Amino acid sequence: MKFFAHGSAGAESLAVEAGGTTYDLSPLTGDAHAVTRDFLENGGIARAARAIADGSLPALDTPVDAPTPQNRVEEARCGAPLAPGKILCIGLNYRDHAAETNAEIPPEPIVFMKAPDTVVGPYDDVLIPRDSVKTDWEVELGVVIGSTLRCASSPEEALAAIAGYTISNDVSEREFQIERGGTWDKGKNCETFNPMGPYLVTADEIADVQDLSLTLSVNGQVRQDGTTADQIFGVGEVLAYLSRFMTLYPGDLVNTGTPAGVAMGLPGQPYLRDGDVVELAIEGLGSQRQTFRDAPAPTAPAPASGAASATTEKETGR
Amino acid sequence: MKFFAHGSAGAESLAVEAGGTTYDLSPLTGDAHAVTRDFLENGGIARAARAIADGSLPALDTPVDAPTPQNRVEEARCGAPLAPGKILCIGLNYRDHAAETNAEIPPEPIVFMKAPDTVVGPYDDVLIPRDSVKTDWEVELGVVIGSTLRCASSPEEALAAIAGYTISNDVSEREFQIERGGTWDKGKNCETFNPMGPYLVTADEIADVQDLSLTLSVNGQVRQDGTTADQIFGVGEVLAYLSRFMTLYPGDLVNTGTPAGVAMGLPGQPYLRDGDVVELAIEGLGSQRQTFRDAPAPTAPAPASGAASATTEKETGR
Repeated sequence: MKFFAHGSAGAESLAVEAGGTTYDLSPLTGDAHAVTRDFLENGGIARAARAIADGSLPALDTPVDAPTPQNRVEEARCGAPLAPGKILCIGLNYRDHAAETNAEIPPEPIVFMKAPDTVVGPYDDVLIPRDSVKTDWEVELGVVIGSTLRCASSPEEALAAIAGYTISNDVSEREFQIERGGTWDKGKNCETFNPMGPYLVTADEIADVQDLSLTLSVNGQVRQDGTTADQIFGVGEVLAYLSRFMTLYPGDLVNTGTPAGVAMGLPGQPYLRDGDVVELAIEGLGSQRQTFRDAPAPTAPAPASGAASATTEKETGR
Repeated sequence: MKFFAHGSAGAESLAVEAGGTTYDLSPLTGDAHAVTRDFLENGGIARAARAIADGSLPALDTPVDAPTPQNRVEEARCGAPLAPGKILCIGLNYRDHAAETNAEIPPEPIVFMKAPDTVVGPYDDVLIPRDSVKTDWEVELGVVIGSTLRCASSPEEALAAIAGYTISNDVSEREFQIERGGTWDKGKNCETFNPMGPYLVTADEIADVQDLSLTLSVNGQVRQDGTTADQIFGVGEVLAYLSRFMTLYPGDLVNTGTPAGVAMGLPGQPYLRDGDVVELAIEGLGSQRQTFRDAPAPTAPAPASGAASATTEKETGR
């Protein structure tokens, strides 16, 4: 199955594609805008499969609702398929990428984090931060956790905890990341810096997660063309390693690193500029396309938190 | 006002203390277990003040419900007062702490992250991770964002975006943080590593955020005794700096660094062991107390995500 979210930002509905047909998932997920921890924790994937088998999910008009870059400009915008709990990222996890950035092959995985508020849909615009001169791309296999994992005893145990896979563009500002002291998080958490999707593809649909091609082009020119076979630490090894330092919960996302071909490693370092179009694809997981835009000047500060407002009482019931 | 959460884990209710009286906040917040982004974004603080003035919030029996370490062992457990969107942390932000860890005074703030899933209540047990030998404490002033902040033009603009303050214990595993390669996040995100609270104290109650004493003791022995006057980068400066690299949203938490006196910097490096009791306090914000416990061995892996379960449909409506 392939889960996806469609609709205007903040008002997406969930749908699921299986066997060439697309179904409305909202009978199971209500007004959820993306797959959540609760859905995964409460057997949501199995329930979706049963509901499809039972014929209890209404079919959707596939050509309109399936996520494609073309839909981006029509009514059926595609949102991120997952509302992640936390986002963990692995740095320098492909041999060729480590080489192009003049970094040593790391003896154990390098870990950094992105905030879930960086997530946008796979065809949404990405904002180049104010004062940025080194905004870069990174196509990555995103792993979605399906069951809680603590101190996994083997890569195999870790692999069994996976719900599925998605595409992440781990957008990075290299000056913020590397030249401003401290840890990498500073260059990884700018607004809109984690386009995700279009699909959350369930693990059973991927025959060998260590044999997937990943590609990325900028304005039609291929820049990254790799394979997960070249990962230094494989997916199971990465998850088992992470689970020694922190607990992985259903709905957590792990971005597993990027192959060679980022702007930082190319001749002339062609960092992204306003209007550039980036297209990403991973075998079996669909494709993304983003236009990069200069971030607008910040608006005047909002009223202080104590200010009165005609409230919607939105927080009630959360 | 001082917001706090009381009740068993996962079933807390919100309350607010003002003028020496404690009120039930659930008429405004429904079954919310902590202050949320939505509450802050929709004028929740002002609405709480109005509801208290109107007499429309029921008073609670203060001796039972106000958060104290003693309540930890009775029915009225205290939860974390805030469900943070993201947690940003500033490293080496007190001159004496930088010196004790043999670190240079950083030329600009060092930024790292904690996942919101590390948050526990102020009197909850903290788990010493398996394979940990260097679990350490850090009392920190936690700043709660009240309104969205992008590229603040001054520390004053940043200070105006603050909803209030709380106490964080930025628990840290020094080997994971420093000796395992990569960024600090690896030693900052173990389960239960961010006790928070007891209160979210609104900003108007703190006359000068750069003149607050912070203390921490272990088994009754004072280990940290500092003041926010010694911060290298003050609170407004920290928030303005962060807002250049990422957007701060209502409900985000910023842990602003710790003064000298952590185990790593003390003679003999007395890292925490099973049974140690850590007590923390910040002037005007209350106090915390945690018992540190060895994490239990992980249980057998949960069924894979696709497994059927008698669902509660909890995800519906989220």
